[in-house]
Amino acid sequence: MDGKALAAKVDVATKNKVQKLADQGIVPGLVVILVGEDPASQIYVRNKERRAKKMGLNSVVRKLPDTISESELIEVIHEYNVNPKIHAILVQLPLPAQIDEFHITMAIAPEKDVDGFHPLNLGRLLVNKVAKTPVACTPQGIMTILNAYHISLSGKKVVIIGRSTIVGKPMAALLVNANATVTIAHSHTRHLSEVTREADILIVAVGIAHFIHAKDVKEGAVVVDVGMDRDADNKLVGDVDFESVKPKAAFLTPVPKGVGPMTITTLMAQTVSLAEWSSEENG
Amino acid sequence: MDGKALAAKVDVATKNKVQKLADQGIVPGLVVILVGEDPASQIYVRNKERRAKKMGLNSVVRKLPDTISESELIEVIHEYNVNPKIHAILVQLPLPAQIDEFHITMAIAPEKDVDGFHPLNLGRLLVNKVAKTPVACTPQGIMTILNAYHISLSGKKVVIIGRSTIVGKPMAALLVNANATVTIAHSHTRHLSEVTREADILIVAVGIAHFIHAKDVKEGAVVVDVGMDRDADNKLVGDVDFESVKPKAAFLTPVPKGVGPMTITTLMAQTVSLAEWSSEENG
Repeated sequence: MDGKALAAKVDVATKNKVQKLADQGIVPGLVVILVGEDPASQIYVRNKERRAKKMGLNSVVRKLPDTISESELIEVIHEYNVNPKIHAILVQLPLPAQIDEFHITMAIAPEKDVDGFHPLNLGRLLVNKVAKTPVACTPQGIMTILNAYHISLSGKKVVIIGRSTIVGKPMAALLVNANATVTIAHSHTRHLSEVTREADILIVAVGIAHFIHAKDVKEGAVVVDVGMDRDADNKLVGDVDFESVKPKAAFLTPVPKGVGPMTITTLMAQTVSLAEWSSEENG
Repeated sequence: MDGKALAAKVDVATKNKVQKLADQGIVPGLVVILVGEDPASQIYVRNKERRAKKMGLNSVVRKLPDTISESELIEVIHEYNVNPKIHAILVQLPLPAQIDEFHITMAIAPEKDVDGFHPLNLGRLLVNKVAKTPVACTPQGIMTILNAYHISLSGKKVVIIGRSTIVGKPMAALLVNANATVTIAHSHTRHLSEVTREADILIVAVGIAHFIHAKDVKEGAVVVDVGMDRDADNKLVGDVDFESVKPKAAFLTPVPKGVGPMTITTLMAQTVSLAEWSSEENG
């Protein structure tokens, strides 16, 4: 499954929406807040900034020192919560130890929560009330991939490995809402290979290079690899051993050019959606 | 597993808490809002009222005509949201067709949402931030039962049949948080019996009398029956065929006197918790 090509397609649709909003005098605004100087975070933020500009968004990067206190960071967030030019607020994770990530998530106005990590938005997703509700970008992007490749979900056995707020939990909610039979596996799961071999659709988000091999996968399964890992040669690889699993799987997302590009594309699309929803509320 | 005996034990602990609050001049207040005259709802509300009085709570039943509009009902809820003598608000379901249940759920102040159905509380549960967070009473009651019978959950295969907001979805979140490997099955699940036979712990919430038989259950499984169904003779029975499953299961909750009593006991306990949390916030 070619995430990069699909992302390019979605980007075209998003740009059209940006154009329509421009005709109404609205420029969707995304602020990315970066605390400290973590090298990986700096790269991610730069990529987001570049893409946002390319899409014609109002892209703001707010850099803050890693000595900032939790309450100071919350004050900065409040500033953007009430700024009408900003429709989407993203705080780049991880945060320094003195700051509780959950408090930060809670501080973002739910209607500007482009990551979909605010518990109000997660709760809406859980009960399938997703109208005008931002959803975590990685699982949302995976749904777009599955949909584009006409993978039917209703009644299918889906196994998700990983239960993070960023991937596993919202992914499970999306798939239950799509009528799949969903199993959430994780580090405490026993006999994991037996569990994964049952899956019609296997979604792997463990963060360990080449964690899943051919023996762990059912013949003809759909395999989605959320990993962004480094192998012994420091090459970017996934959680799935692509070469061994490829012949056995009906569909398999590669790393790179699989889930990764769809995540950032979904972030852009969702920024635009937040601007649209905001203009509908205010219009 | 004897839900009734366990409920009586929990009630004693709750009463002690009520006494302690009384010493501080606080009486936990529960309002149950009943719209219309559905006979089953009237019985449920009467039972809750009786139990709340027995526990020494300030029990209010607010009866409203089934012609009430959504906005009128929301106004009544707002009245209790700001009433300092009321710590817990429960709107008895179902509601008449002109009222959207989700709008009503959203109108209840999250800190008085004793049913735990507000998406903010569901989202907090999903991300395992449950301090001072009300959780749906039936799944919470089931956790109390599993805990009382020393059923270990970590790494266990749990299958939940049912994906309602009232039982299945919060149950899944609680169990994932307790390190179980959780499968959510439902009406679209194919080969359900194969799925349920894999379960170390099987939780059945489908609302169909005697839906699960011995052939659907693994030898030595723990089976929790959430059903409250009527058989052909109008007798109260569960979703599980008790007689056939009993010899095969290591533990099995009966109906009646299983999950049912624990639900109402949890409702009382959670009303008291809401009053405690409120006094901590204000004290």
